[in-house]
Amino acid sequence: MKIEVIAIGTELLTPYFQDTNSLYLAQRLNDLGFEISFKTIVGDNWENLIFCIEKAIAFSDLVIAMGGLGPTDDDKTREAFAEVLKKKLIFQEDILKKIEERFRRRGMVMPAANRKQAYIIEGAEVLENKNGTAPGLWLETGKKKIVLLPGPPHELRPMCEESVWPRLKEICLGFMARKTIKITGLTESEVEGYISDCYPKTKELNLTILAYPGQIEIHLAACSTKSPVEVEEKIQNLENKILARLKENIFSTSGEELEEVVGKLLRQRHETLAAAESCTGGLLSHRLTNIPGSSDYFLLGVTAYSNSAKNQWLGVPPELLQKYGAVSAEVVQAMASSVREKAKTSFGLAITGIAGPSGGTKEKPVGLVYTALSWEGGVEVKKNIFLGKRDLIKFQSSQIALDMLRRFLLHQQNKE
Amino acid sequence: MKIEVIAIGTELLTPYFQDTNSLYLAQRLNDLGFEISFKTIVGDNWENLIFCIEKAIAFSDLVIAMGGLGPTDDDKTREAFAEVLKKKLIFQEDILKKIEERFRRRGMVMPAANRKQAYIIEGAEVLENKNGTAPGLWLETGKKKIVLLPGPPHELRPMCEESVWPRLKEICLGFMARKTIKITGLTESEVEGYISDCYPKTKELNLTILAYPGQIEIHLAACSTKSPVEVEEKIQNLENKILARLKENIFSTSGEELEEVVGKLLRQRHETLAAAESCTGGLLSHRLTNIPGSSDYFLLGVTAYSNSAKNQWLGVPPELLQKYGAVSAEVVQAMASSVREKAKTSFGLAITGIAGPSGGTKEKPVGLVYTALSWEGGVEVKKNIFLGKRDLIKFQSSQIALDMLRRFLLHQQNKE
Repeated sequence: MKIEVIAIGTELLTPYFQDTNSLYLAQRLNDLGFEISFKTIVGDNWENLIFCIEKAIAFSDLVIAMGGLGPTDDDKTREAFAEVLKKKLIFQEDILKKIEERFRRRGMVMPAANRKQAYIIEGAEVLENKNGTAPGLWLETGKKKIVLLPGPPHELRPMCEESVWPRLKEICLGFMARKTIKITGLTESEVEGYISDCYPKTKELNLTILAYPGQIEIHLAACSTKSPVEVEEKIQNLENKILARLKENIFSTSGEELEEVVGKLLRQRHETLAAAESCTGGLLSHRLTNIPGSSDYFLLGVTAYSNSAKNQWLGVPPELLQKYGAVSAEVVQAMASSVREKAKTSFGLAITGIAGPSGGTKEKPVGLVYTALSWEGGVEVKKNIFLGKRDLIKFQSSQIALDMLRRFLLHQQNKE
Repeated sequence: MKIEVIAIGTELLTPYFQDTNSLYLAQRLNDLGFEISFKTIVGDNWENLIFCIEKAIAFSDLVIAMGGLGPTDDDKTREAFAEVLKKKLIFQEDILKKIEERFRRRGMVMPAANRKQAYIIEGAEVLENKNGTAPGLWLETGKKKIVLLPGPPHELRPMCEESVWPRLKEICLGFMARKTIKITGLTESEVEGYISDCYPKTKELNLTILAYPGQIEIHLAACSTKSPVEVEEKIQNLENKILARLKENIFSTSGEELEEVVGKLLRQRHETLAAAESCTGGLLSHRLTNIPGSSDYFLLGVTAYSNSAKNQWLGVPPELLQKYGAVSAEVVQAMASSVREKAKTSFGLAITGIAGPSGGTKEKPVGLVYTALSWEGGVEVKKNIFLGKRDLIKFQSSQIALDMLRRFLLHQQNKE
């Protein structure tokens, strides 16, 4: 079954905008066992639009078009499909009423332009839009299926969930399951080395390794024509194999970010955290506080960007700064212990390094970063060398610091 | 002139990857006065690939295909174009030599698979790839032009700069210039109101307003068949008109981020800054330190996420916290003044609010954020209500705080 997704809008052909709806569509179509064969992006130009629609309908079995259902003159999707299908546009009083009602609820009168949205292609089923004025359309001609959707993601997604996927589920050919395994603390080739014999030999099971700075992801996908249970089992067996190999290097198998995982571990154990940052400049603190409810365990972050701030706010002795320099194992250790003691938390994390692009020397190059974890009774220090630009060095540094705490909490848990 | 860009690769049809090369191509084609008519994304499936290439060559005047030039069996772009054009693939000894040499320089022997990359389509010009093994191809058949490019951006971009744009420049129809004007502190409709009569009446000049949370952008584009000078003048005249209307609400006309503009102003005036954050959790500090060299003016950031940290680290009196609550004008003012005094900086910025999703009340709803700027001799407090999720509330809060400082520094400058 060939599937074509068409994104319609002149802005999608400029350097500034990109169709992102199709990533969501790909995900949900994959879930049903379908794959996209083509994606096409076309502007509001009538001739180009007609050409795209003609060849899509000629070659594909399912055509999903999005965008161009709005009230303005630019919006021609409905008209163009009607033209290619040689069908009439029919005015629907009840749709107009709903659109008018929508404006009324917001204390407004419907502009005349919106009347256009009450026309539907002859023979089409209307897909209700609970989050906007443009209704979607579902059309079948011969064996071909055509779906017209509004462009804004907050309108398109609920409409798909409510009206499109349930209809496609009835004709779906199989089942699909996916899983993402997130790893930190290993390189891509180390991960590859651990699991090189786990690559599935069947076409129905797929394993892909994706490398990001500071994080490796293993994406698993399984499909089957038999049952959703079978497909889940296939994924689970492969996942178990990988879990046994990579053990605690894996921090999530359910989509969570590292800061979320660390937050959960702290919350479970009723422990608290403070952060002392230099080169990451607040990023560690920012990531931790992106998690709702983080104020339960994250109490204080200090970005001590100058030596005097490191001394005054974190009590790092000037002798230490002078003898070893701000980027050193000695200073990061003092930062972690001091912030923990001053904030009276269970843990202190500290980061100091050279994020670049300038400030590096032969002995202390750009990318040299020390991270430390302090707890009552001990401190652990790590020396790291990161590659990449300033933003990547900042990110990888925060990632390593979070991971030090995660591993410590895991080991504590395992000891109990 | 119709232009189609084809991105080839099965991964580009999954939920995980997106073609981003086409944004670069759009930018550089626009610079030459060209516009993209279609973008197509297709996988490594032979039948689908052939179909896409056939209809692209039939309907467009310039076809730019990227990806699928690699050494593996999946890579079929060269073969598919040859098939559609009914041309032979011809082995080129000199290309093979170059590929072998590339491997040799890295101390490796060329794998047999790479031999495939030394075949070119009969009649094509070879575009040298200085950053990879796959050469590009430039083909002309009748009035149609076809360009085959490697997929990796670090190979595609230099090849385009060196070999593609110079060739297209010779046939380009005109010149294009662009400008982005960035605004903060106004809503989209306020911006619209100020400049509603600035919308150009000619097709050769274009004005688009884009709204982001905490930031509005006006994108200007001009094209002309006459000269690059004329096109720059057109943009400049329109820009001047808009500058006169929006004045200090504009923070950049050259692509800079707000934190960069604030950093420049601080540096020019040899002034320094400290930040006290609650609901933004370190984001303000993180944004400021994303700018290389920010340690010259940014000395300290404190994320006081708990009341006791606000008291202990920022000296906010417990009575104040009890009487007005942590989210109040009184507390934000104390935070800004205290962090400035303790860090001995010229300015102190503070933010406290409710980022959600929980923690809101009827009197103090999610999105209520106080921001304050403190300087020697004064303090300014702002009460804001932001909409959106946690990350957007955090971002908008940091944006308003940066903007308070920017406007203060501008006024100081104007007074002098």
